[in-house]
Amino acid sequence: MPEPAVGQGVAAIDTPALVIDLDAMERNLRRMADFAAARGVRLRPHAKMHKCAELARLQMAHGAVGVCVQKIGEALALARGGVTDIYISNQVVDPGKLLRLADAVAQQRGVRWAIAVDSADGVARLASAMAKAGVQTTGAIDVFVEIDAGQNRCGVVPGDAAVTLARQVLACPVLRWAGLQAYHGRAQHLRSAEERTAAIDHAAEAVRASCAALAKAGIGVPLVTGAGSGSFLLEAGSGLWGEIQPGSYLFMDADYAANQPLPGAPVFEHALFVKSQVMSRGADRAVVDAGHKSHAIDSGLPRVAHPPGLEFANGGDEHGILRAAQEGPLPGLGETVWLIPGHCDPTVNLHDVMFGVRGGLQHGWVERVLRVDARGAVG
Amino acid sequence: MPEPAVGQGVAAIDTPALVIDLDAMERNLRRMADFAAARGVRLRPHAKMHKCAELARLQMAHGAVGVCVQKIGEALALARGGVTDIYISNQVVDPGKLLRLADAVAQQRGVRWAIAVDSADGVARLASAMAKAGVQTTGAIDVFVEIDAGQNRCGVVPGDAAVTLARQVLACPVLRWAGLQAYHGRAQHLRSAEERTAAIDHAAEAVRASCAALAKAGIGVPLVTGAGSGSFLLEAGSGLWGEIQPGSYLFMDADYAANQPLPGAPVFEHALFVKSQVMSRGADRAVVDAGHKSHAIDSGLPRVAHPPGLEFANGGDEHGILRAAQEGPLPGLGETVWLIPGHCDPTVNLHDVMFGVRGGLQHGWVERVLRVDARGAVG
Repeated sequence: MPEPAVGQGVAAIDTPALVIDLDAMERNLRRMADFAAARGVRLRPHAKMHKCAELARLQMAHGAVGVCVQKIGEALALARGGVTDIYISNQVVDPGKLLRLADAVAQQRGVRWAIAVDSADGVARLASAMAKAGVQTTGAIDVFVEIDAGQNRCGVVPGDAAVTLARQVLACPVLRWAGLQAYHGRAQHLRSAEERTAAIDHAAEAVRASCAALAKAGIGVPLVTGAGSGSFLLEAGSGLWGEIQPGSYLFMDADYAANQPLPGAPVFEHALFVKSQVMSRGADRAVVDAGHKSHAIDSGLPRVAHPPGLEFANGGDEHGILRAAQEGPLPGLGETVWLIPGHCDPTVNLHDVMFGVRGGLQHGWVERVLRVDARGAVG
Repeated sequence: MPEPAVGQGVAAIDTPALVIDLDAMERNLRRMADFAAARGVRLRPHAKMHKCAELARLQMAHGAVGVCVQKIGEALALARGGVTDIYISNQVVDPGKLLRLADAVAQQRGVRWAIAVDSADGVARLASAMAKAGVQTTGAIDVFVEIDAGQNRCGVVPGDAAVTLARQVLACPVLRWAGLQAYHGRAQHLRSAEERTAAIDHAAEAVRASCAALAKAGIGVPLVTGAGSGSFLLEAGSGLWGEIQPGSYLFMDADYAANQPLPGAPVFEHALFVKSQVMSRGADRAVVDAGHKSHAIDSGLPRVAHPPGLEFANGGDEHGILRAAQEGPLPGLGETVWLIPGHCDPTVNLHDVMFGVRGGLQHGWVERVLRVDARGAVG
C-alpha cells in the first residue's frame, strides 16, 4: 500500500487506513498530563494501545514518567525506538522471553525496566534469567507484585500471598521491590459510573488488605500502580494509587465513549479514525472497503464519524455496510467515510502505520507517518 | 520474536504463535482437490484466508486453477510471491488502486488477472486505468459481474442490471467478459444444513434469473464462480456454478466446525492452531498469553485443542482464561496450551509467519516457516 508524502492532503491517504487527528490527540495528551499533575499522581500511559515509540516519547515529553507494555516483544521494540522507562505490567514466565529481557537489562543503554510477577515460580525464573545474563547491579529491575483487583484474571489473592512474593523479591538483590500492580481491566468498560465506582472500591479494598498485610510483615509499599481510561479518576482520588496507567485516552474509541462519564473526569475526544471508501452502492446501502481486518470488533462495531446520519453494520472481514439512520442520503461510489473504531488497542495492532493529520480530517494534510513499532509483538 | 530454525522441535516455537499441522493441512488440500476433480468443477481457493504465496502455489500444484483475493494489495503481494492466476473477487473503484492493478496487467509477467465489478462507474474506472497504463491487449483481464446472491452486500440486483454491465464489459476490448460472481457469504455460517441449503437455493435463483436475462440479450455466461467452505457442495451440485472458491477448508476453524455437515460433503480437519503458554495460575483458572491480539474473536472464542477438558473465556487483548470443564486438572505455569481459532482469516492476518509442523503438535518439528505475505494488505 503506497504511503502519502508528508505535506500531502488527506485525499492522498489510500483506504482503508488509520488516521490520527493530531490536534485532537494533542488536546487529549495535555488534558491527561494536566490531570495527573494537578492530582499529584504519576502518569505511566499504557503503550499496548498505540505500540508506537514516537508516541511513547511524546507522552514522556509531556510529563509521563514512562510507559507500560504487556509483552517482552513490545518492550524491546519500544526500547529500540528510544523509550527510556518501560514497565511490563504483566507476567512473563517463559525462560527464553525472560532471558531476552535480562539481556536488555544487562546492556543497560539508559533504559529503566520494570515487570510484574504473581507467582513464586515467576520470581525465581526472573531471578534466574538475570543471573544467566550476568546482571549484578543491585535493583537492576523494578518488580511489582500483581494482586487480583477484582478481574479474576492474573494476580495473587490480596493479602498474605503478596507478602510471600514481596519477601522473595526482597531476597534477590538484583530485583528492586517496587510495590503493587492493581489493575481492574473489566471495570474500565462497565457502562454506569456507579458500577465502575463499585468495582474500583472493591479494587481499593484489595490494595488496602495487601498493604496491611505487608505493613504487618514490616514491608513498606513504595508505589501502587494501575488504573485505565475508564476509571483513573477513582484510583487517583483514592489516596492509594500513586501511578495511573491509562492508554486509550490518547485516541478514545467508541467503546470508552459509550461509558457514562465519571463526575469531574476530564473529557477526551476521538482522535483515531479509519479512513474508508465506498466501493459498492445498493439502493438502500453503501458498502465501504473496511471490515474487521481494518478495525477490531471485539468491543463493538465502529461508529460513522462522517458523513453524518449513517449506521455501520458488520460486512465481514473486508466490508462495512452503511445504511441511512433516518432515510437520509447515502454517500456515493468512491466517497470517503470516516469511522471511529470500537476498540483502539487491537485496531492499531492491525496496521503497520498511522497517518498523523494536521488541520482536521476534511481539509488537513499529513504531518507525520507514525510507525506501529510493536505491531504483532504478541510474544 | 525469535523464530525457531527449521528442524527444531515444537518446543522451540515461542508463544503465542500460529502453527500449521502440515499433515492435517495436506489431507484437507487433497480432499478438496479430489472433490473438485470428481465433480468436474474448477477449484479457485480463496487466498484471503491464508494470504500466503507459498500456500497459494501449493494449492495450484494440487489442481486449483488459481486463487481469489479481496484486495489489490493482496493480489500484488501474491503475484510477487510467484502466484500466476489471481482473481480479485471484489469491487475496486479507487483510481489509484486500479492503476496499480493495470500497471501489473501491463507488465504481464505471466500472471492471469481477473476482477469483479458491480457498477457502471466501476467498469468505466477499470477501463480508464487500463488505458492509462497502456494496456492494449484484447481481453487482458477477466471481468466478472457480481450479482447479489442474497447477502445484501455487494453485487447488482440479479437480472437486467447484470446485462447492462456485461454489455459495458463487452464493449471494452481490453476487458474479457468472464461471467458471473455469485457468492453468499452469510450463508456459509448458517448452522443447520437446511438453512444453508435454502440460502444457496436462493443464490441459485439469482444466478438463473441473471443467466436468463443475459441469454435473452444474446450474451452467454462463460462461467459462474462463487461458494465458500460452508456451502460449496451445494453450488457444485447445482449445475450452475462452474468454479468454487472455498478458503477455510485448508485450515478449518472453530466456527466452520460448528456447522451441521451437509450430507455427502467432504470432512476437513483442524490444521491451524495458536500455540500459547500458561503465564499465570489461580486456584480455579490458568491464564494463557494469547488474547485477541493473537486470534480474532469476531466469530467466537477459540476452542482448546489440548490439553483436554478446558474451556476458554475471553481475557482481553493479551490473555485467555482457562477453566476446567468438569473439575478436571488445570495446566501448570509454563505449560503449552493449543487453541483452535474461532475464525481463521482474520486470525492469520494478525501474524507475520505461520510455523508449519510435521509429525503432530505434541512431538513434531518445524518443517517450514510460512510468511503471511499479504498480512495487513487491506487496501
